[in-house]
Amino acid sequence: MTNKKQTAVILSGCGVYDGAEIHESVLTLLAIAKQGAEYSLFAPDVEQYHVINHIKGEPTEEKRNVLVEAARIARGDIKPLSEYNAADFDALILPGGFGAAKNLSTVAFDGPKCMVDTETERAVKETHAANKPIGALCIAPAVIAKILGEVTVTIGQDEGTAQAIEAMGANHMTTNHGEVIIDEANKIATTPCYMLDANILQIAEGADNVVKAVLDMV
Amino acid sequence: MTNKKQTAVILSGCGVYDGAEIHESVLTLLAIAKQGAEYSLFAPDVEQYHVINHIKGEPTEEKRNVLVEAARIARGDIKPLSEYNAADFDALILPGGFGAAKNLSTVAFDGPKCMVDTETERAVKETHAANKPIGALCIAPAVIAKILGEVTVTIGQDEGTAQAIEAMGANHMTTNHGEVIIDEANKIATTPCYMLDANILQIAEGADNVVKAVLDMV
Repeated sequence: MTNKKQTAVILSGCGVYDGAEIHESVLTLLAIAKQGAEYSLFAPDVEQYHVINHIKGEPTEEKRNVLVEAARIARGDIKPLSEYNAADFDALILPGGFGAAKNLSTVAFDGPKCMVDTETERAVKETHAANKPIGALCIAPAVIAKILGEVTVTIGQDEGTAQAIEAMGANHMTTNHGEVIIDEANKIATTPCYMLDANILQIAEGADNVVKAVLDMV
Repeated sequence: MTNKKQTAVILSGCGVYDGAEIHESVLTLLAIAKQGAEYSLFAPDVEQYHVINHIKGEPTEEKRNVLVEAARIARGDIKPLSEYNAADFDALILPGGFGAAKNLSTVAFDGPKCMVDTETERAVKETHAANKPIGALCIAPAVIAKILGEVTVTIGQDEGTAQAIEAMGANHMTTNHGEVIIDEANKIATTPCYMLDANILQIAEGADNVVKAVLDMV
């Protein structure tokens, strides 16, 4: 056993346009390790909404599984999200990428009326009910807003997404690179990352800041 | 135009078992940015040797293209390696992952008698001939050794790989986490990263150190 803080991270595939954003995912893991905490990776065992050729930006005919692709970021060390138990962890973090808006939810297509993956909804609700902190990067805060409703989050400055979040019953705060919005009552920390036109240094800063904010609430 | 140092990075796919190791790739890009330099990404436009299910560790029936998959790490901003021109860059860096040993070369299967992807060979030879520095992480130093022959590199402590490198006519130096071997005469800097049983903090340290060593030789 270890007395290090235990963090669960939910990945949504592998690649910005149809899965977890890779820089945000890796830099979240690095930030957790830098804070002296440990991480375990989870992803829903479901088919991706679609597969995007990341050069052309267009869908292909392929079928891929969210968990199997997320295992690339995890170097194979990942579990189905159905095995997540909030009691085993001190905190939960969701990196961004379109996978959060296409696989963990349908927010990319349906905005405030989106559906949410059942295991993602369960994981977030159980963590919140256990009064444990949740962090989210990029577009993932919209998924948290859809699941929990009356929370305060940021996705940066995109007006359409901010309006969708407000329509979910949540409160949106505008932010710039690296900034974190902390909803202390709900123990939710969020940061915009690649929802802004960011470089990799700004992603590292955002990941460091949101992870520190989350772990400080443990 | 910019006066920042320009670094080209060759990716070999997306995922440790059949492509570029994702942590090493992202942390190499972060290290370049931290040094105040800029990066451009390249990958050979060839079919992957195979596709590995990263949960099971077994090959699948799928076909994937190295450039198209590497574009996931690059967020779409990547060019075919055939467009690489050593005159446009100050330095060249190759992250690791089995992609270096299966797609950029066949060293995973054929050891010292391996073949090397023609564009990878051209890129490394032209960069070396231009007296510009080259960096390599993990197993990628074995590819450099195969292409250039009489150079000094490290892949850490794996005896079989070290012997293969020596059989290529190169010199292997044993190293531990984060250590860099600098062949000053040939301007080659190498570090073991995940060729050792490393954690993500050690990968970040290795990437930082090898990138700094490379850029210091510019």
